[in-house]
Amino acid sequence: MGNKGENNRQRIVSAADQLFYRRGYNQTSFRDISDETGIPRGNFYYYFKTKEDILGAVIDARVNAFEEMLEACSSSASDPRERLLCFTNMLSVSEDAVLQAGCPIGTLSSELAKDDDAYQEMSRAVFTVIRQWLVKQFNALGSSSSDEKAMDLLARMQGVCVMACAFDDRKYLRRSLADIQAWVNSQTLS
Amino acid sequence: MGNKGENNRQRIVSAADQLFYRRGYNQTSFRDISDETGIPRGNFYYYFKTKEDILGAVIDARVNAFEEMLEACSSSASDPRERLLCFTNMLSVSEDAVLQAGCPIGTLSSELAKDDDAYQEMSRAVFTVIRQWLVKQFNALGSSSSDEKAMDLLARMQGVCVMACAFDDRKYLRRSLADIQAWVNSQTLS
Repeated sequence: MGNKGENNRQRIVSAADQLFYRRGYNQTSFRDISDETGIPRGNFYYYFKTKEDILGAVIDARVNAFEEMLEACSSSASDPRERLLCFTNMLSVSEDAVLQAGCPIGTLSSELAKDDDAYQEMSRAVFTVIRQWLVKQFNALGSSSSDEKAMDLLARMQGVCVMACAFDDRKYLRRSLADIQAWVNSQTLS
Repeated sequence: MGNKGENNRQRIVSAADQLFYRRGYNQTSFRDISDETGIPRGNFYYYFKTKEDILGAVIDARVNAFEEMLEACSSSASDPRERLLCFTNMLSVSEDAVLQAGCPIGTLSSELAKDDDAYQEMSRAVFTVIRQWLVKQFNALGSSSSDEKAMDLLARMQGVCVMACAFDDRKYLRRSLADIQAWVNSQTLS
């Protein structure tokens, strides 16, 4: 695939990523992605045969994006608590998007859970990357239940996203992020 | 509307309620509801002109169902903590459904947030009923931040539903419910 092909493929994945987030996977058609990118539907099939193929590529792209973001948090500090705070800051950086459409990972996962099981497995990939990184940080803090804490932190953030979006409540989102960060700070270094 | 009409209407709402939960609102067609109920689509329009009308009726039905459930929890105990525990038991009673399709309220809310704002407002109705009931219980416990606690409890339960469903993890769901109930028990009566 030449540069132009690679570029078109990336544009399709990037547009689909946004559409899946803003409208939902099932509510996004090939046509929507074509309209968004200006790439004719005919050319389009050259890169992806099915919508499921695009879903796979979007999930891969999200896994990569989260890996980079987590890597940046790892590099930003040596204290695992600082790294965890860096991760939770996502709720601050993405405030507007969370209020409007919830968490991209959580809402896609919830949506796909209602389709077939294979889809749900795919959507789990992003959570798994984050979960594993969180376990590492809690391990570094000397926790004896790192995986439980990783799941607890993910669940708290997911719950806050659901409620902040449901009530479109920025003040609640900020207060809850502060609560989550206080909990992270309360984790002791062994 | 005669008895038969009322009965048909209820059957449509009940089938739509289940389909919206198991497949998602956008993934459910008039035809699906017709297939599920055996009521021909022609007759069908007699009760509901649009899918949005059905959505409204489903949300009304859920509001009623939750009001009854909360009323039952209120009647079951005088200690507000016991009432709150009764409410959280929903995660135990609905274990299989939560693992398969998440929380019906949270996932509908997340799905509708991606559509237009009017839909999102509609979906907020069920959360609002629960939130108000929770505030009453925390007030009875003498809390000075009852609404914050109500939102915290809702968020915790929502987060647990998202993660339990994403990983299809029954053990995690049970452990997390126990954590939530320990938190409820730790709330002091003034």
